Order: sequence, then C-alpha cells, then structure tokens
Amino acid sequence: MAVAPLKVGIVGLGNVGTGVARILTDHPHRIAERAGRPIVLKRAVVRNLNKPRDIRLESGVLTNDIQAVINDPEITVAMELMGGIHPAREVILALLKAGKDVVTANKALLCEHGNEIFHAAREYGRTVCFEAAVAGGIPIIAAVGQSMAANQIIAIQAILNGTSNYILTEMQANHQHYHTALKQAQDLGYAESDPTLDVNGLDAAQKLGILCQLAFGTRVTTSQFEIQGIDSLDLSDLKCASDLGYHIKLLAQARLTNRELEMSVRPTLIRKDTPLSQISGPFNAVLLEGDMVGKMWYSGRGAGQAPTASACAADLIDLAVGRAQLTFERLDLWRERPEYPVMPADQTTSRYFLRLRVEDKPNVMAEVTGILGAKGISLASIVQPEAPEVDAKSNTPVVPLVIMTHRTTAGQLQEAMSELDLSSSVRGPRICLAVAD
Amino acid sequence: MAVAPLKVGIVGLGNVGTGVARILTDHPHRIAERAGRPIVLKRAVVRNLNKPRDIRLESGVLTNDIQAVINDPEITVAMELMGGIHPAREVILALLKAGKDVVTANKALLCEHGNEIFHAAREYGRTVCFEAAVAGGIPIIAAVGQSMAANQIIAIQAILNGTSNYILTEMQANHQHYHTALKQAQDLGYAESDPTLDVNGLDAAQKLGILCQLAFGTRVTTSQFEIQGIDSLDLSDLKCASDLGYHIKLLAQARLTNRELEMSVRPTLIRKDTPLSQISGPFNAVLLEGDMVGKMWYSGRGAGQAPTASACAADLIDLAVGRAQLTFERLDLWRERPEYPVMPADQTTSRYFLRLRVEDKPNVMAEVTGILGAKGISLASIVQPEAPEVDAKSNTPVVPLVIMTHRTTAGQLQEAMSELDLSSSVRGPRICLAVAD
Ligand SMILES: NC(=O)c1ccc[n+]([C@@H]2O[C@H](COP(=O)([O-])OP(=O)(O)OC[C@H]3O[C@@H](n4cnc5c(N)ncnc54)[C@H](OP(=O)(O)O)[C@@H]3O)[C@@H](O)[C@H]2O)c1
Ligand SMILES: NC(=O)c1ccc[n+]([C@@H]2O[C@H](COP(=O)([O-])OP(=O)(O)OC[C@H]3O[C@@H](n4cnc5c(N)ncnc54)[C@H](OP(=O)(O)O)[C@@H]3O)[C@@H](O)[C@H]2O)c1
Repeated sequence: MAVAPLKVGIVGLGNVGTGVARILTDHPHRIAERAGRPIVLKRAVVRNLNKPRDIRLESGVLTNDIQAVINDPEITVAMELMGGIHPAREVILALLKAGKDVVTANKALLCEHGNEIFHAAREYGRTVCFEAAVAGGIPIIAAVGQSMAANQIIAIQAILNGTSNYILTEMQANHQHYHTALKQAQDLGYAESDPTLDVNGLDAAQKLGILCQLAFGTRVTTSQFEIQGIDSLDLSDLKCASDLGYHIKLLAQARLTNRELEMSVRPTLIRKDTPLSQISGPFNAVLLEGDMVGKMWYSGRGAGQAPTASACAADLIDLAVGRAQLTFERLDLWRERPEYPVMPADQTTSRYFLRLRVEDKPNVMAEVTGILGAKGISLASIVQPEAPEVDAKSNTPVVPLVIMTHRTTAGQLQEAMSELDLSSSVRGPRICLAVAD
Repeated sequence: MAVAPLKVGIVGLGNVGTGVARILTDHPHRIAERAGRPIVLKRAVVRNLNKPRDIRLESGVLTNDIQAVINDPEITVAMELMGGIHPAREVILALLKAGKDVVTANKALLCEHGNEIFHAAREYGRTVCFEAAVAGGIPIIAAVGQSMAANQIIAIQAILNGTSNYILTEMQANHQHYHTALKQAQDLGYAESDPTLDVNGLDAAQKLGILCQLAFGTRVTTSQFEIQGIDSLDLSDLKCASDLGYHIKLLAQARLTNRELEMSVRPTLIRKDTPLSQISGPFNAVLLEGDMVGKMWYSGRGAGQAPTASACAADLIDLAVGRAQLTFERLDLWRERPEYPVMPADQTTSRYFLRLRVEDKPNVMAEVTGILGAKGISLASIVQPEAPEVDAKSNTPVVPLVIMTHRTTAGQLQEAMSELDLSSSVRGPRICLAVAD
C-alpha cells in the first residue's frame, strides 16, 4: 500500500536547515516508517545560490526564489529556518496563507510576533510547530502541550542558553576567565557570531516567554521581567559560591504565586547536590512543576545542528502522522486570555547572595546588618571568608563580607543595596545574586 | 458547540485508580479544555464494594461487576488499574474485543504478555496506552514514540525503581542501614507491601524490557539479561564508592553494540558530578542517547498516586484528542521483528569496581593482578584504602583492596573472580560492581 509522500519546502539552508535536509536524505526509510509515509524535500530556499553547501541535493531542489515554495500546491509543509524577524515573519504569514503547515525554530520571532502568527494559522486552518525553538533537542513543547495535560504547571526553572552554560561550566570547572571561555564557545560553534543575546540573557528570556505562554496561557514580553546576563560575572564570584556549596547558572524562572507570574532570567546560585547544578557544557535543562505530577525535568543539548534538526524532524513526522494538527488545535497559545498577569519585578521574591567589601573596623557588621534589617531583610548567614586587604583608593583595610539572606522582595533588596552604596564603610564592587530554592 | 463526552470505565480503584478518578472529578473543566471534550467516569470496578474509599463517587459508578464496563457500549475507553497478571490479562483482552481502547499502568503484564495484548489491539483496531507503566510521571513512552522519532536510539541508562533509589539515597546521605531504609520506604508508601520485586531488580528489569521493545523493536524477556538487586549492598560499599567519587544507583542499561543489545539491571557506580548520580529519593530518571539528538534525559517521580494518575490522565486526554490512536498505529512494538538480538550476558562489557580482602603479605598484590591480567583484565587503579585488620577465622592480618578495572566482559570477570575465590590469599566477602561510563 503506497501512501503519497509528504512534500516539504525548507526556507533557509544554514546550520539547522542543512541538518534537517540531511536527516531526510540520509534516512528516508527510517523517516517513512515513523511517519507512515515518505517525507520528501522538494525545495530548499537560500539567499545565495553560489555559496558552497555541506550537502548534495538533487538538481532543482535548491532555489533562491521563495515563491517556488509558496506557489507550489504539492508542498504542504514549509520550514522557516532562516532566522531573524524580517522577512521571516512575512514569509511565515505568506506560507500559512498559501495553505501550508509551518515548522519553525525561530524563538526570537515567536516571542515577538507569535500572537500574529498563531492567529493567522488558526484563521487559515493551518498548524505551526516549533519544538526546536525552545531548548533545541529537549521535547519541551510536547511535554507542556501533551504529557503534562492533566496538570496546572506551577513553576518552571530552566537553563535555556547553551552558550552561557558552557561559559559558566568552563569558568567553574577549569577556572577559565569569562572572555577566554566565550572565545572557546565561539570556536566550538556554540555561540552566535554576535553572542550578545546569548550572554546578556535575552535569548533565554525569549524562550522563557514562549514556555510561559504555553504553560500559563499568558502572553509575556521580555520587557516585563528582570533579565540579567552572565557578562558581568567574575571568576571570584563562582569561586566564592562554590565554597558555599553552590554552582552559578543562568537560570530562567517562572512561578505562579497568588495567580501572578513571578519571572526572571539571571545568574543564580544552585546547590551542588541538585541535578540542575550538574548540567554542564552546552546542555540545557528544564524543570517543570505540575500540581499532579510534582517536579519533572528534562535535559539535553540546547542547540547545534543535529539536535535542533532532530526536533524539527520530529515536528515534520508529527505533521505527517496528523498528531501535530490535533495538538495545535488544543494548545492554549496566544489566545489573548491573559489569565495570570506578570508580577512587577520589584515584588518578586528570592533568597539572595551578597558579596560586599567593607572597612575593617568594629561597627561595620552592625551597620550592614542594620541597613538590611531596616528593610525587613533577615539573614540566613554572614561570613567574612578572607583576611583583610588594603583598599587602594582609600588606603584603609577592607574585608569581604558574604551574606545569604532569607526570602525577600527584589524591591526591598534594591533599596537596601542603594543604602549600602551610600554608606562610607562599604566599598565596591559589590555582587548581589539570586539563590534558587 | 457541545462535544459528546468521552465515557470511561476504570477497572481497579486502588492507589492509582483513585488518583485518576480524583483528577476527573476534581478538575473536570481543566480536563475538558485540554481534551476538547468532557471526560466522564461512568464506572469504577472493584472487588470489594464495602471497602472504605478515599473518594466520593456518584451513585451507580462503583460496581464489582466487570461486565458493567465490558458490556456498556457507551464506555469507549477502559483503564486496567487492578495490577497483577491474572485476571488483568483476560480483562484487557475482553475489553479490547468489546471495542474499547485501553489505558494500563501494568508493567508486569506488559513485559510478560505485551505481545499478545498488542496483537489483539491491532486485530480489533483498538489502541493501548501505557505511559504510566514505565517511570510513572516521566513521559518516556511519548519521548521514545514521538519526540525521538527522527533518531535511532543507541543507548538507555535509567533509574526505574523509586523504592530502590530511595533506599540507596538514605544509605548514602544519612548512613542508614539497608533494612532501616527499606522500612522507611514502606512506611512512606514507596515500597510495595511485598517489596521483593522492587529491591531484587525485577521491577526495573520489566520496565527496561518495555523500553527496549519501544526503542529497539526487540521483544525482551527478563531471563535474557543480568539482573542484580540492591538487597546485598552494604553501607561500607556505598562509603567506599563515595570516597572514590561515585554514588551507587540501581541502573538499568541497554546499549546497541554491533547490532546486538547489551542489557543489564544492577547496582552501578556513577560519578558524583553527573546528573544521574544526583537523582535522589523516590525519583526515577531515564537517559536516552539518539544518533541525532545525542544525550537526552528525563527525571521525575517514578510512582505514587498523583504522578502515576497524571500519566494515566495524559493517556486519556491523548485518546480523547485522537493523538494516541495515531501514535499507536506507528509504534514499532511487539511486531515480532527481532532486529537486534540480546547479547549473551557473559559477552556484555563494562568497567568494574572490585573490593577484596586479602592477606597482608608481600606477594598478594602481584597474585591478584596476575590472576586478573591472565584473564585479559587491565586495571585502571588499585588502592589499599585502610589499615590492616585481623581476620577472625584465620587469625591472619588482612587488608582491603579496591580495584577499578578497564572495560572487560562479564565472562572474563566471572572467570577471574572464580579464580580469586580459589586463592588462599583472598578472603570474603568480596564485592564486584559495574561502573557506568
Ligand atoms: N543553530 C542552532 O543551533 C539553532 C538552535 C535552535 C534554533 N535555531 C534557530 O533556527 C533558525 C536558523 O538558524 P541557523 O543557525 O540555521 O541560521 P543560519 O546558519 O544563519 O542559516 C540561515 C539560512 O537562511 C537563509 N536565508 C537568510 N535570509 C534569507 C532570505 N531573505 N531569503 C532566503 N534565504 C534566506 C540563508 O541563506 P544563505 O545560505 O544563502 O546565506 C541560510 O541558508 C534561527 O531562527 C535560529 O534562531 C538555531
Ligand atoms: N502504585 C503506584 O505508584 C504505581 C505506579 C506505576 C504503576 N502502577 C501499576 O498500577 C496498577 C495498580 O496499582 P495500585 O497500586 O493502584 O494497586 P492497588 O492499590 O492494589 O489497587 C488494585 C485495585 O484493583 C482492584 N482489583 C484487584 N483485583 C480485582 C478483580 N479481580 N476484579 C475487580 N477489581 C480488582 C482492587 O479492588 P479492591 O479495592 O476492592 O481491593 C483495587 O481497587 C498496577 O499494575 C501497578 O503495577 C502502580
């Protein structure tokens, strides 16, 4: 019984697109068996036809004319793998309008224009799949959309940027400096050529936004919550955290608290004896807490050609089988039903780790704890880990002070830090990092 | 637009059945929204109508007559949650014959009679869902069956028995003795009232069997591979492993090597700085390696009422949406296509950790390494960690010897151990445990 093949057009044959094309051309039998029908790459659209490619395609497949996909009625599924906002947005809208289901890995686009794209898909009766957009190889979209379906998700804790995690692992394990580790990440192909969004937390924030829309039905923009990158971390911060029994990770968090969403992306101390702290190198991890299933978590490669292509190919197979269409219908996504508002950043709560340099004189400890206490911040521990040194500027002896607070609001902490900055006994630079529960 | 509700019959209202009934009765709106239609519990079958129940059901729902489900054409989905082999097998076959899709959490039954059950389902055009049968709350069936669809899975490493993992965690972290920890596991409801299958490795082996059938298309019985429980482990083994930088976990493993399946379930040393070693308490974890996506892993509660019921309810929702039917059609399960045979146990390879007590005399080290070397076993390290003591039986001084081998076959190791047992210099008890890569 021969079933008609599914014909696919790929728009963008770069890192990810080439990976998908390879799976389809290298493993046609495997894919046909899993999908119930052959999946055939009919067109691959690029900008530059003369660029050397890492893959041999049958003649006529490669084109620089996007219309060759849009106007071909045989092509029922198109993959947007070009990246960026424009013209990716316009291309997807045109593909949907032309009656094609769409697979995309474009988190930046979905975070910013997901609303419009998902509306268009519903209007045209089409399906959008985006498993590869968040945490590459980790099937987190399937987990939230299907496997956790009996749960209300109440919390997300995730490592969503492989480049940052690679850099932090190198700093922690091999005592590399930030810039050396970043350079390595670029050489290994983990970081984008412009790694700004990787290390400043925005890439992770876009992915957290997509996860929150899935898990909580709330449309979130990256301006609504605190985002801090790893670019200002120092080796000594990691060392100091390690001495206290913690690793530092770029943690994306969302928690449902009194029907509000507490969200943040920032370097966070995580106890070493937890699995999340052991996620090393370019791996991602997502911890979900459901009201039925309790804590669940997932880890895998967050990016890279083969893992990302594996997720895109799973989307293709889901479309060929007909599952993706059923799932999409039920996804509570971009439906403009903002059930849970995002909590203002200064009201979010956390434990914190503070590192100050203070003058080495009798009443300083009392002054610091007094300032924190006056803002209602209570301390879990306070240690002075090293011998005094002499502050170059003021020529006075200074000592480091490491403080762990109990849970407090970001607002209270901010006020206390401002007061500490005014105190003549406190010298910069000072460090203030969140501590995971 | 009112959609007809899906009517469900639950056979077995014990721990898991009550959990499922609770989700359906406590969260009808949530379930209806995710499933696209209401899911209604029409009948719940028990043995003893007079037993007190933790749940209030509408009158007429509770029955002790299985025919009330089998013969009710309105009930299109039935859940087998009674456990055991008989009459669970006969009940499922009758339900399928009566035209019902079936959800089950019964790993013992699936491991032993999965073949027959899945054949019957295909014959009658029905679907069998079993997400809860392996690793409770972890959606591992969906991961293997859908998310990894573009991959050939090449290896599985998993912690599949929560009771064993709880016991090992208590021994490791709190220095509890085996029997104290087992008692606690029973008090906390993690262990079955007869915990034999939990601690002797058979429960984990049944689950590994199901995973292998899914991942490799090979029908495996528990007699085909090495199964060792945690019931003979001593606190001092965990202590000694810990000093070397390892935790001991009951690890279920399968690996595709030269088109054969290397399988085992046994206490295994895992490096402390890996996430798998940090899985603590009643949690399960599954690490999958795919040829595209690389290493992926999943962790969550392996058992317990709410997590298991959450997985069963996800199956129900998948059936209501229509996804499960599509997935089942494509699952490469029990199709009697034994592509990859199971490798004979003595040919499987691993690194090993050996702990011997030997006489404290000059040539013993040479004798021991000589015996191992003659069997082709090379050593990664050998240490004598403690001061000599006097052997009570022979009244001679003995010292412990801790050896890490390089990769060797189980057969070679077995031969070497037999020879060591014959040596007059070696005293029992001796310990020999696998070491994970
Ligand atoms: N790389 C990863 O590991 C990863 C992981 C997860 C998600 N993603 C997402 O996947 C998407 C693709 O990433 P990538 O790394 O594969 O990008 P890439 O290597 O830069 O490839 C982009 C491709 O799109 C083509 N293209 C760009 N603009 C075009 C236009 N206007 N018309 C036609 N073709 C155009 C390029 O053509 P030429 O080849 O002719 O230049 C190139 O083939 C992005 O959204 C990214 O965020 C990537
Ligand atoms: N417990 C877990 O955490 C867990 C996790 C994963 C999978 N599982 C699997 O889930 C299944 C159920 O486990 P469970 O812990 O819920 O078992 P359970 O608490 O022992 O409950 C069994 C239920 O089945 C009923 N039953 C037994 N034999 C019957 C018969 N012949 N006719 C009608 N009803 C019968 C019992 O009726 P009465 O109430 O009248 O005695 C009881 O309600 C098993 O296959 C188990 O392996 C359990």
